[in-house]
Amino acid sequence: MYIIINLKFDLLFFAFLAVTSSIALASDPSSLQDFCVADATSSVLVNGRVCKDPKLVEANDFFFSGLHLAGNTSNAVGSRVTPVSVAQIGGLNTLGISVARIDFAPWGLNPLHTHPRATEILTVLEGSLKVGFVTSNPENRLISKVLQKGDVFVFPVGLVHFQQNVGHGNAVAIVALSSQNPGVIAIANAVFGSNPDIPADILAKAFQVDTNAIYGLQSKF
Amino acid sequence: MYIIINLKFDLLFFAFLAVTSSIALASDPSSLQDFCVADATSSVLVNGRVCKDPKLVEANDFFFSGLHLAGNTSNAVGSRVTPVSVAQIGGLNTLGISVARIDFAPWGLNPLHTHPRATEILTVLEGSLKVGFVTSNPENRLISKVLQKGDVFVFPVGLVHFQQNVGHGNAVAIVALSSQNPGVIAIANAVFGSNPDIPADILAKAFQVDTNAIYGLQSKF
Amino acid sequence: MYIIINLKFDLLFFAFLAVTSSIALASDPSSLQDFCVADATSSVLVNGRVCKDPKLVEANDFFFSGLHLAGNTSNAVGSRVTPVSVAQIGGLNTLGISVARIDFAPWGLNPLHTHPRATEILTVLEGSLKVGFVTSNPENRLISKVLQKGDVFVFPVGLVHFQQNVGHGNAVAIVALSSQNPGVIAIANAVFGSNPDIPADILAKAFQVDTNAIYGLQSKF
Amino acid sequence: MYIIINLKFDLLFFAFLAVTSSIALASDPSSLQDFCVADATSSVLVNGRVCKDPKLVEANDFFFSGLHLAGNTSNAVGSRVTPVSVAQIGGLNTLGISVARIDFAPWGLNPLHTHPRATEILTVLEGSLKVGFVTSNPENRLISKVLQKGDVFVFPVGLVHFQQNVGHGNAVAIVALSSQNPGVIAIANAVFGSNPDIPADILAKAFQVDTNAIYGLQSKF
Amino acid sequence: MYIIINLKFDLLFFAFLAVTSSIALASDPSSLQDFCVADATSSVLVNGRVCKDPKLVEANDFFFSGLHLAGNTSNAVGSRVTPVSVAQIGGLNTLGISVARIDFAPWGLNPLHTHPRATEILTVLEGSLKVGFVTSNPENRLISKVLQKGDVFVFPVGLVHFQQNVGHGNAVAIVALSSQNPGVIAIANAVFGSNPDIPADILAKAFQVDTNAIYGLQSKF
Amino acid sequence: MYIIINLKFDLLFFAFLAVTSSIALASDPSSLQDFCVADATSSVLVNGRVCKDPKLVEANDFFFSGLHLAGNTSNAVGSRVTPVSVAQIGGLNTLGISVARIDFAPWGLNPLHTHPRATEILTVLEGSLKVGFVTSNPENRLISKVLQKGDVFVFPVGLVHFQQNVGHGNAVAIVALSSQNPGVIAIANAVFGSNPDIPADILAKAFQVDTNAIYGLQSKF
Repeated sequence: MYIIINLKFDLLFFAFLAVTSSIALASDPSSLQDFCVADATSSVLVNGRVCKDPKLVEANDFFFSGLHLAGNTSNAVGSRVTPVSVAQIGGLNTLGISVARIDFAPWGLNPLHTHPRATEILTVLEGSLKVGFVTSNPENRLISKVLQKGDVFVFPVGLVHFQQNVGHGNAVAIVALSSQNPGVIAIANAVFGSNPDIPADILAKAFQVDTNAIYGLQSKF
Repeated sequence: MYIIINLKFDLLFFAFLAVTSSIALASDPSSLQDFCVADATSSVLVNGRVCKDPKLVEANDFFFSGLHLAGNTSNAVGSRVTPVSVAQIGGLNTLGISVARIDFAPWGLNPLHTHPRATEILTVLEGSLKVGFVTSNPENRLISKVLQKGDVFVFPVGLVHFQQNVGHGNAVAIVALSSQNPGVIAIANAVFGSNPDIPADILAKAFQVDTNAIYGLQSKF
Repeated sequence: MYIIINLKFDLLFFAFLAVTSSIALASDPSSLQDFCVADATSSVLVNGRVCKDPKLVEANDFFFSGLHLAGNTSNAVGSRVTPVSVAQIGGLNTLGISVARIDFAPWGLNPLHTHPRATEILTVLEGSLKVGFVTSNPENRLISKVLQKGDVFVFPVGLVHFQQNVGHGNAVAIVALSSQNPGVIAIANAVFGSNPDIPADILAKAFQVDTNAIYGLQSKF
Repeated sequence: MYIIINLKFDLLFFAFLAVTSSIALASDPSSLQDFCVADATSSVLVNGRVCKDPKLVEANDFFFSGLHLAGNTSNAVGSRVTPVSVAQIGGLNTLGISVARIDFAPWGLNPLHTHPRATEILTVLEGSLKVGFVTSNPENRLISKVLQKGDVFVFPVGLVHFQQNVGHGNAVAIVALSSQNPGVIAIANAVFGSNPDIPADILAKAFQVDTNAIYGLQSKF
Repeated sequence: MYIIINLKFDLLFFAFLAVTSSIALASDPSSLQDFCVADATSSVLVNGRVCKDPKLVEANDFFFSGLHLAGNTSNAVGSRVTPVSVAQIGGLNTLGISVARIDFAPWGLNPLHTHPRATEILTVLEGSLKVGFVTSNPENRLISKVLQKGDVFVFPVGLVHFQQNVGHGNAVAIVALSSQNPGVIAIANAVFGSNPDIPADILAKAFQVDTNAIYGLQSKF
Repeated sequence: MYIIINLKFDLLFFAFLAVTSSIALASDPSSLQDFCVADATSSVLVNGRVCKDPKLVEANDFFFSGLHLAGNTSNAVGSRVTPVSVAQIGGLNTLGISVARIDFAPWGLNPLHTHPRATEILTVLEGSLKVGFVTSNPENRLISKVLQKGDVFVFPVGLVHFQQNVGHGNAVAIVALSSQNPGVIAIANAVFGSNPDIPADILAKAFQVDTNAIYGLQSKF
């Protein structure tokens, strides 16, 4: 659900990723009051967020606007995620859920990634998407399907998955995630685009290629 | 289960309720394997569902089709919920999330209700909705807002809330809930339409009206 | 378990409700130390409460006195709740449980309400109580029983329930709740006594009555 | 909260203990449906209990009678616990709470014990009790207080605690525990009355006494 | 912590992986009884495992032997994991923890992988290991260190991590994981060795290489 | 914290206890971000620990050194625990796991204790250990076994357990615990060494001995 290639060059895109990595987990701890709206001004950091004074809470603390607007897919993978998580809606803090919109250009791809803290459920609003996830070792079974408008598909927590636009026009999906901050690990970025780089000999042995091939891959992320 | 209710009195209104009652909880227990797809054939009942043999799991266990279709809103409240929960997608079992589509005729209402086991996050796909929730005692504060296409709003777990179409055309929303089975308690039905009835003197004292007024209310549910 | 009618007029009663809405949930997060006594002086707000210095903790942090005293039932519903939750005993913070005493005048009623964050287990100390809860949609089944002294009854988390004194004398019950702060949603207050009011047309459609009937109900809360 | 001395000789008492060790934990997993009443007839064993068919559930599944009756304290410690847990009320399954009544003869003692899966909150109904708990290592601090009728005290999950009648008459308390099955570990029984015995040399070194002293202690349990 | 390259050719290794993918999560649901030993003979599948009759439980249900034996590292990555999880010790069911031994030949690598359901804590018993993990998007920060005998390092739940023997002799580590069944997702296998293959055009766009390069990578897994 | 205790009476024995009491729980709440490293400088106390600024987090926050070093077993019980918990590795905060090393002199004993917040899994690195745990009431069944090098054994959360070196040489074990801070309750210390003392008459009745015997036991702790 996250664009990778232009990560290093597209500031807006960085912004989206920053946001994106604030989404939520099926096993988020339970709420101990009606709500605990994230206090954006606090310097105290806890598991999740500290709360603002409930007397100051207003409707806008539970509100976000703009999910009807298409994201800009002019990037190397032809997709864009617009997240709505605890970073966008402070009222989601302690409530264990978030959503996002994904836009796809024709043949656009939301590359392979995992959410370390959430299951994802996707609904196709427009277009056709080929989606899939891979089970854990040793099976590494690919469970995949082509979805049409109105179809819904589930990606279990922590598993590697992808979505690709296989129609001739644009595609749009809305996804929900079972955490206020699911996080995203884009495989290609985590493996070949980390900062600093993972040593090339480690990647070469892991992927059974020579180090020059690794240098080539790293140069792109 | 829902069909039975549909036969009871108001087929459409109850259908919406039946649907509503299939949604999920932020504190669902965590998954202990990649997935535990609900086994629709098992006679063993547990907290959640028992799992089918993972070797027999296929893509369709994570799939639902038809959320692009408008629900029939020709009923007393002018709204209809189409749920996608563990009852519709067995693969949601143990994963703590679900979704639903809500259709509204002009001025259609999704009446006051609570989800005992889930927070709800709503996205407006079409139209304008007046939405709100009420905090717990003693404040009983109404937090309310009019939403437009593309707006997102959060209803914290367990609180009484509603959505009303305040536009001149139809309205459509997609909601996500933080449980595989959040449940729904429609206030009017739970209070005035229970089976058997709650004694009229109890309701009369609770709502400060005479018992005839209560009989009148009960006759409608 | 909460008196509704005189909510708007009885300040002491407001105090009790304020307190009451601090009670606890079966899925409260687990404790990560022997205890985390709520620090009443802290300005930092978190999910639950921040802790006082354990070196300053004393027996009184786990103590409350006065549950042998009858509550004042001179109010419109003839019942009174005396809560003992994290607001009364700071030592309950992170421990997932609380208790309360309920007094009933003859025919006194603890009107319909839900606890969004706790299951309730009630023990009758004196008198006879008619109790019941309603299951979620679509069944809305009323599960009800008349209890005598020494009887125990369970109200599952999030479901609408009530208790009524059906004896000729006073009745007394002690209840335990599975959260440090279960919260209470008194149905009549949440629906007809919210602040500001829920629009009358929304209530009229929900309860299938005309708006004048709604104005009449709202005037009482 | 559990009588130790006559454990090996008092069958009724064994029955009570069997029952007693079925009580509940603040972090019991959350419920995924309105209720999951324990099916006493099932041969399938799971974490907690499997559920009976909800269509067959009735009010009695949430009900227990007899907590107004004094327990028989004619035993070596002069106390008796009457538990009301998932073993007595199947409806408590998945709901994370239970209760019990404790009777004390004059100077009767509920000897040192822990609940591995629950916090306990005690209310004194009659008499005066000296109660206390000990914090974990290295402090091993005793937090203790004398309670009168109407007093409430909290014993955090997993800590060693006791209650003693320090009045001249009988004493009665009602306790709530944050699990459907908290379990009890009576220290003297677990250490000196296990089956088979813990080797005497291990106990002698642990308690810094000679093995004859250990044999003497073991002979009593 | 899992060998990838010879997955497709080494049956014993498959066996180990099958086992390996049975390990446990920090948020495993809590135990509701002293223990719930996995019943290897049951045909009923639940989240986790069903329990054997506690009366039949014996010490061997909590026991595993052989972790002092070096694993066979004669494989493409020069490492071998020997897991001890709920698949090896049925008594771990519901208890939220497991362990494993990892052997490394000189320069042996435990290639990049994630555990979808567990945090890992590693202790070096022999040799020197270079270890690291990568944070989620957008930072993708590599946090890495060279460890010596007696050093301990933590890999947070869900993050991509690796371990490499950087000494001239063999290296041995023991790891603990916060789940009875953490699972493992070996990145290279999940991406290039799934069954069936992920379409080459999807991988080519994700990794910014041509499809021939992808075919080359897939041929190795 | 531990040093203070060391000064109290038996420096070494308490050191082991102090150490032991820093270990973690299977039901620790889930992480809501990649990591939440404990901020050792914060004055704000919460359930667990508050987090340091993630931008300041470095590899050393996940690191501990020295577990290859034997602990000093020259003390009354001939054993020593070296813990590696959230107190030693701040990066363990919110992650639900910890480890420890235990050294045993010949016939050295890790005396009877419980962990109120964690299951323990032990691996024998050197020597032979007799280990056991006792189930809760009423069975109080001892489940025990002699372990050799490479053997693994599980002690379920909250149950009383012990380990004794039954070989002629030293013994070493590494244990993992399912909490960042499991805590330890050493039975002899909690019962006979609390501060202040538990009244002798309470202990005398609990253990069925006269008060002089209790004074003797208390004098040793």
